[in-house]
Amino acid sequence: MVSFRFFGGKGGVGKTTVAAAHGVACARDGLETLVVSTDPAHSTSDVFDQQFGDVPQPVSAHDRLHAMEIDPQAEVDDHLQELRQQLGQQLSPAMVNEVSMQLEMAHQTPGAYEAALFDCFVDVMQNADDYDRVVFDTSPTGGTLRLLALPEYLEQWVERLRHKREKSIKNFERAAIGDQQARRMLEGDPIIDRLQERKRNFEFAGEVLRNEAAFTFVLNPDELSIHETRRALESLQEADLTVDGLVVNKLTPDPDPDETGTGAAFLRNRVSRERERLETIRSELEPPVVAEIQSRAEEITGDTLTAVAAELDTRPVE
Amino acid sequence: MVSFRFFGGKGGVGKTTVAAAHGVACARDGLETLVVSTDPAHSTSDVFDQQFGDVPQPVSAHDRLHAMEIDPQAEVDDHLQELRQQLGQQLSPAMVNEVSMQLEMAHQTPGAYEAALFDCFVDVMQNADDYDRVVFDTSPTGGTLRLLALPEYLEQWVERLRHKREKSIKNFERAAIGDQQARRMLEGDPIIDRLQERKRNFEFAGEVLRNEAAFTFVLNPDELSIHETRRALESLQEADLTVDGLVVNKLTPDPDPDETGTGAAFLRNRVSRERERLETIRSELEPPVVAEIQSRAEEITGDTLTAVAAELDTRPVE
Repeated sequence: MVSFRFFGGKGGVGKTTVAAAHGVACARDGLETLVVSTDPAHSTSDVFDQQFGDVPQPVSAHDRLHAMEIDPQAEVDDHLQELRQQLGQQLSPAMVNEVSMQLEMAHQTPGAYEAALFDCFVDVMQNADDYDRVVFDTSPTGGTLRLLALPEYLEQWVERLRHKREKSIKNFERAAIGDQQARRMLEGDPIIDRLQERKRNFEFAGEVLRNEAAFTFVLNPDELSIHETRRALESLQEADLTVDGLVVNKLTPDPDPDETGTGAAFLRNRVSRERERLETIRSELEPPVVAEIQSRAEEITGDTLTAVAAELDTRPVE
Repeated sequence: MVSFRFFGGKGGVGKTTVAAAHGVACARDGLETLVVSTDPAHSTSDVFDQQFGDVPQPVSAHDRLHAMEIDPQAEVDDHLQELRQQLGQQLSPAMVNEVSMQLEMAHQTPGAYEAALFDCFVDVMQNADDYDRVVFDTSPTGGTLRLLALPEYLEQWVERLRHKREKSIKNFERAAIGDQQARRMLEGDPIIDRLQERKRNFEFAGEVLRNEAAFTFVLNPDELSIHETRRALESLQEADLTVDGLVVNKLTPDPDPDETGTGAAFLRNRVSRERERLETIRSELEPPVVAEIQSRAEEITGDTLTAVAAELDTRPVE
C-alpha cells in the first residue's frame, strides 16, 4: 500500500530539504520511496547533487530512493499553447485575438498555477504503485483545497450540459440534419468528457488525500512563519485534512558556553528569542512539534542530509 | 507633487521594516510622508509600537510621518458579501445557491486578493494630495501588472456591451415597451458604469506607476530570494516599470576578529556564503544595491529603526 506524505509551508522555510531528508529516512527504513519536488529553484537536484527530471529516477548512493522534479508552471504554459492551437482551428482570426488575450490573463493568475500543481499531484498519485511511500515537498493550499468540494459541483454542471446537449440534438433532428451526426455529438462530446475526467480526478484526489495521506508543516521560528502556518492549518482543517506534525527548521545554533564577543552575544540573543517562539508554537498550534532542526553552516547535502534524516521519524500514515 | 515608492519582495524578506525605515528617513528629510502597509501580520504597528487602521494617522515621535494599514483580504470578503446581497434581490433561491458557490470560489483565488490589493493602491494614490511622498510596503506583482494593459481591453469590451445594449433597446422599442424606460437602461447601466470606472482607475494607475512612482526590491542573501527577485524584476520590466534599487536585508553580522568557538565559526561561514551571494546579486541583477542591512539581535523598532533609516537614502523619483 502506498502512502503519501506532503510537506507544507511557505517558500523558503526549507520544505524541499526536509522532504528530501524524510525520503532518505524512509528508504533507509526499507520503504521503496519516491520524492516529488515542485520547487521552481530545483533544489532537490542541489540537495542530492544530481539532476532530476519529470519522471522518477533512482537517487545515487541511496537504495530504494527515487526522485523527480515537476514544474507546474510549464504545465500552465503548455496548456495555454494547446488551447491557442485549438482556437486557431475553430475561430475567426478576430475572435482568436480577443479570446487569446483572455486566455493569457487567465493563465497568468496564481489560480492557474495552483490548478496545474493539483493536476501534477493527481498524476503522480495515480501512478505510484511501484512505491511504498511518496513524499511531496509541497502541499495543496487554500484555493486548491476548495477544489476537493468540486466533484459534487461538477456533477451538476455535467448533468446540465448533457441536458442542453440533448435538447439541441433534438432540434438538429427536427431540422433533419441527420441523426447519425447528432448522436456522435452526444457521445463523444469533448467538453462533457473533459468535465467528467476532471470530476473523476478530483474524486480520486479527495479519497487519497483524506484516507492515504498525511501532512507535515515546516516552519521557521519567526512571527511571519507562525502566522502563515496558523492560516494554512485552518484551511487544511476546513478541508477535513489533518496535519500530524510540525517541523521547526532553521533554528539558530548556540555558541559554545565559554564564547564571548559580539558574535556570541548576537547568537545567544537570537536563540533566546527563538525559544520564546518555539514556546508559542508548542502552546498555540495544535499539531505536535516532531522535529527541531538547527541551521548548519554548510548547505544540507550528503552526510548532513543523513544527519537531518536521523532527526525525522518515518511513521506511517495512520 | 506627490511621489510614490513601492518596496517589493517576497513575504518575510523585511519589506515592511525597510519601508517604515524609508518613511522615517523621508520625514526626517522634511517630506510629509505616508507609509502604507498591507502586511497581514500588521507589523507596521509593531515597528512603531502604535496601532494603525485604514485611515492615515500621525506616527508618534516622528514629525511629518503618517501611517495606515490596509487589509486587501477584508476588501475581498466585503465584496463577496455585497455581491451576495445583490444576488438575493435579483435571482431565484436555486440560482443564488449555484452562483454563490461560483462567487465564493472566485473570491478565494489568489487573483482576487491581487485585484483587491490593486484597488487599495489606486484608492490611496487618488487621495494622496496631502503628502510629498507615499511609501508602500509591497508592490504590484506578476498578475496584477498585466492589469495595466487592461484599459485598452476594457474599452473594447465597453463598446461592445454598449452596442448590444443599443440593439436590445431598439428591440424593446419595437416591442413598444415605451422608450422612457429603455433610454434609462442605456444611460444608467450599472455594468457599463462599473466597467468605465474600472477603466478610468486602471488608466490613472498606469499613469502614476509609470511617471510618478519608483520601485525598490528587498531581498535576502539566499538562493530562493535571488531567484524570486530575478523573476519579479522581469515582470516589472515587461510592464515598463523600472526598479531603481535593491536593498539586501538580513545579512549575518561578523563576529569580533578575535572570537573563536563554534558560534564564531558558524557566523564566519555564513558571512562568507552571503558575500558570494551579494557578488551574484551585484553582477547578475540589473538594479544597483542601494543598501545592505545587517540582522540585528533585537527587533527593529525605535532607535534601531532610525539607524536603519540612516542607511537608506531618500532620492526622489526621477
